Amino acid sequence: MDTPWQQTSKEASFLRSALTTEGRFGTLDEFLDWFRARRTANRFVVEQIPFAEMDQWHFVQAPHRLVHRSGKFFTVEGARVRTNYGPVPEWDQPIIDQPEIGILGIITKVFDGVRHFLMQAKMEPGNVNTLQLSPTVQATKSNYMQVHQGRLPLYLDYFIDRGKGKILVDQLQSEQGARFLRKRNRNMIVEVAGEVPMHDEFCWLTLGQIKRLLTIDNLVNMDARTVLSCIPFANVDWKHYYAAYPQDNADHFDVFDYRLTGFARDLFLSTLDRKPVRHTLDEIISWFTELKTRYEVEVTRIPLDEVRRWVHTDYEIRHETGRYFSVIAVAVEAGNREVARWTQPLLKHTGYGVVGFLTQKFGGTLHFLVRASLEPGNLDVIDMGPTVACSNAAERAKQPDPPLFLDLFLNAPPERVRYAATQSEEGGRFYHFQNRYMILELEPDAQLDVPEHFIWMTLGQIIDFTKYSYFNIEARNLLACLNLLGD
Amino acid sequence: MDTPWQQTSKEASFLRSALTTEGRFGTLDEFLDWFRARRTANRFVVEQIPFAEMDQWHFVQAPHRLVHRSGKFFTVEGARVRTNYGPVPEWDQPIIDQPEIGILGIITKVFDGVRHFLMQAKMEPGNVNTLQLSPTVQATKSNYMQVHQGRLPLYLDYFIDRGKGKILVDQLQSEQGARFLRKRNRNMIVEVAGEVPMHDEFCWLTLGQIKRLLTIDNLVNMDARTVLSCIPFANVDWKHYYAAYPQDNADHFDVFDYRLTGFARDLFLSTLDRKPVRHTLDEIISWFTELKTRYEVEVTRIPLDEVRRWVHTDYEIRHETGRYFSVIAVAVEAGNREVARWTQPLLKHTGYGVVGFLTQKFGGTLHFLVRASLEPGNLDVIDMGPTVACSNAAERAKQPDPPLFLDLFLNAPPERVRYAATQSEEGGRFYHFQNRYMILELEPDAQLDVPEHFIWMTLGQIIDFTKYSYFNIEARNLLACLNLLGD
Repeated sequence: MDTPWQQTSKEASFLRSALTTEGRFGTLDEFLDWFRARRTANRFVVEQIPFAEMDQWHFVQAPHRLVHRSGKFFTVEGARVRTNYGPVPEWDQPIIDQPEIGILGIITKVFDGVRHFLMQAKMEPGNVNTLQLSPTVQATKSNYMQVHQGRLPLYLDYFIDRGKGKILVDQLQSEQGARFLRKRNRNMIVEVAGEVPMHDEFCWLTLGQIKRLLTIDNLVNMDARTVLSCIPFANVDWKHYYAAYPQDNADHFDVFDYRLTGFARDLFLSTLDRKPVRHTLDEIISWFTELKTRYEVEVTRIPLDEVRRWVHTDYEIRHETGRYFSVIAVAVEAGNREVARWTQPLLKHTGYGVVGFLTQKFGGTLHFLVRASLEPGNLDVIDMGPTVACSNAAERAKQPDPPLFLDLFLNAPPERVRYAATQSEEGGRFYHFQNRYMILELEPDAQLDVPEHFIWMTLGQIIDFTKYSYFNIEARNLLACLNLLGD
Repeated sequence: MDTPWQQTSKEASFLRSALTTEGRFGTLDEFLDWFRARRTANRFVVEQIPFAEMDQWHFVQAPHRLVHRSGKFFTVEGARVRTNYGPVPEWDQPIIDQPEIGILGIITKVFDGVRHFLMQAKMEPGNVNTLQLSPTVQATKSNYMQVHQGRLPLYLDYFIDRGKGKILVDQLQSEQGARFLRKRNRNMIVEVAGEVPMHDEFCWLTLGQIKRLLTIDNLVNMDARTVLSCIPFANVDWKHYYAAYPQDNADHFDVFDYRLTGFARDLFLSTLDRKPVRHTLDEIISWFTELKTRYEVEVTRIPLDEVRRWVHTDYEIRHETGRYFSVIAVAVEAGNREVARWTQPLLKHTGYGVVGFLTQKFGGTLHFLVRASLEPGNLDVIDMGPTVACSNAAERAKQPDPPLFLDLFLNAPPERVRYAATQSEEGGRFYHFQNRYMILELEPDAQLDVPEHFIWMTLGQIIDFTKYSYFNIEARNLLACLNLLGD
């Protein structure tokens, strides 16, 4: 067999793009100039308003909930949660019900042998910095069925009409189970061979360029990150080819004409599931089966005005302690959207969360500590998640029963931090919801006591389980930030 | 690399057992003598009774439903189903709600180098022939939490206490989505190294012996079949090893000291995902994502006495046409069960269903025609299923809109039938529910027009998706019947 780098597989083209930081359409500095110009090119004003001043949104009764006049988009309602998992056996909370499956799609095209991705500079009302880099298309079903009578999203036809491109990635992936009831989107990457018409807010970037941008706070949005997290960098043929690669003797790994060193090398070998691997696929499935059997969650929809310990004012629905999040209403004026002015509810977050993976090498193979995560909005009780995911991390750390391992991230020695940046959650639903995304590598000889709802997995195993929709959005969004560029 | 047959992997030991039809504990004839003796060894009388004569079961109100006094086991309630899939957009039906996850477990042990399985001769009230061959353990959570105050099921400790054996298979698998709301069981195979105490109704069989028994009507029960369907016969190393096997020139394939020929050879090469493969893993996931996005099902629980078009008498709840199934009550007297006498509801079926896979070779590789199956009780809208699965097949074939491809199975030329036997569904919930299980192989040059909700997959791909809980019980139960014995 030729080395994988001589193949024409899609994995090879994704990998080559991930290692390329100069695109056909310029350098990163040129992109950043363009992006700054986009920020001032369009008027976009967001203002918090009382619920009563919302236009198409209002509270209805039986049960009490917040709905759009069309009955479409989403509703904010109450949920009563009972579970035998974790320290809190029962709680109430507002939750978003958005049962439709939308499309998060990126168009890709190969220019001069390097795969590029068509990204959009998009303003969302909940973004701390208004403008973020988004997928080519992010469309709810209501959105593209034209419920709000606006224009059809640009490029949507490439994702709906099978004849317009070749599907490279197409997976159903969940969103925040702590905030949404079973919300999922279709994550797609479609390759186009022919000419793609260009519009003002769009640009072509290599995957390496996007990976560099992911080291900047709040630049690449959540919808882009979840799509990028589905990209495979290795296939089963490669995994077998490198099964016997003598990693103990090398401090580097050559791919195409690039030399991977340090953590980038460790990441790539972990993608290849290089042995030794701590747990087989069957062992991981057994671990997950056991936990799904043991843990239960019962989510009952309740009227929004019967949500215990939450206070409802003219301007917000908030927890009596001020913790977690609040439901607010905003008015938006936009110059370049399908609809020029609208009002909508958002879930407001204060403070920062932490989303982190602990990693550690075992026998030379980098592993990630995966946590079984039970959230009320999960489709099937538990998903696989990052080691730590919690909002308001600083406050949570001071309370009794702080999340396990959170302290390791809050007090991480800089030399063990492999990735750290602040990233935003979806600005179309969340107002200023930011998490500190971190990868922390433990010393190979560090002894960590791991409870039963955690398991060590290689990056290759994580990517496989992601294909089958087992990983939650917090994990996927963090994994999307990993890069092979070596800094 | 050595050939796979020299490995000590669990796949190799499963495969060797599947090719062995003489066990340490005798021949199949000796087994059948023993099994016939078990049939007469214990008194077991089943009698249909009026609902009012049930002991621990009764109808309650708000909503009207049939429950056990403990609130455990299961309830029979009403469901209103709306969907945009298939010719019927809305219907009502009774449905069983059994939210607990039970255990279906088989103990395995290697004797003289050959893996054996500990099977139980078990009587169930719904079985047409009372006694069928069952897994070592089949226990609902209520059952093993001792809700009915009986004895704890024999051997259950091997599946609960991790120290007593090595888990080889442990998967969460669904049951009939047309009859159960999201029912799932944990399917387990646990290897025991030491002495296993033997009890009257239990015997050791090789997998090859069990596969032979699966050619006999109504002998191996549904719970055994679903566990057996999770057994892998190949691993990724083997798949790679045989990727370049020149199958076009050979009419056989040698495994250990066995020669696979004909359909057995084709099956095994299909397990290895031998190229050409019609669709990659990513293409299949995209196909499934598209269908999950397009099709919706809304299941609303309704009172059992508001189920439209169903008639409720003292003895049964049946559809006004007499079709589908009916809910009945039975009294059972048993000599060898945890509880000696009990009453319970069952779902009664008349007529035979058909569960069938169409298969066809493409470029020499055997593929199975998989259907996206939408059932009200599915956890996530659609599961992967066999080409055809319908109850009351003869009647359904005469109605308008008969299931696609059903006619091919009802009129199958004998020389294209690769497997056919009548098998029972679970006798603890279903009364006389039988399906004709069939595998039909089309000529390689037969042109079949395949609608979008069907896709061709290799057996290896099916086994992979089964691990991740994508395949429904009808498909799994049929695949369990496949054997490599060549007749």
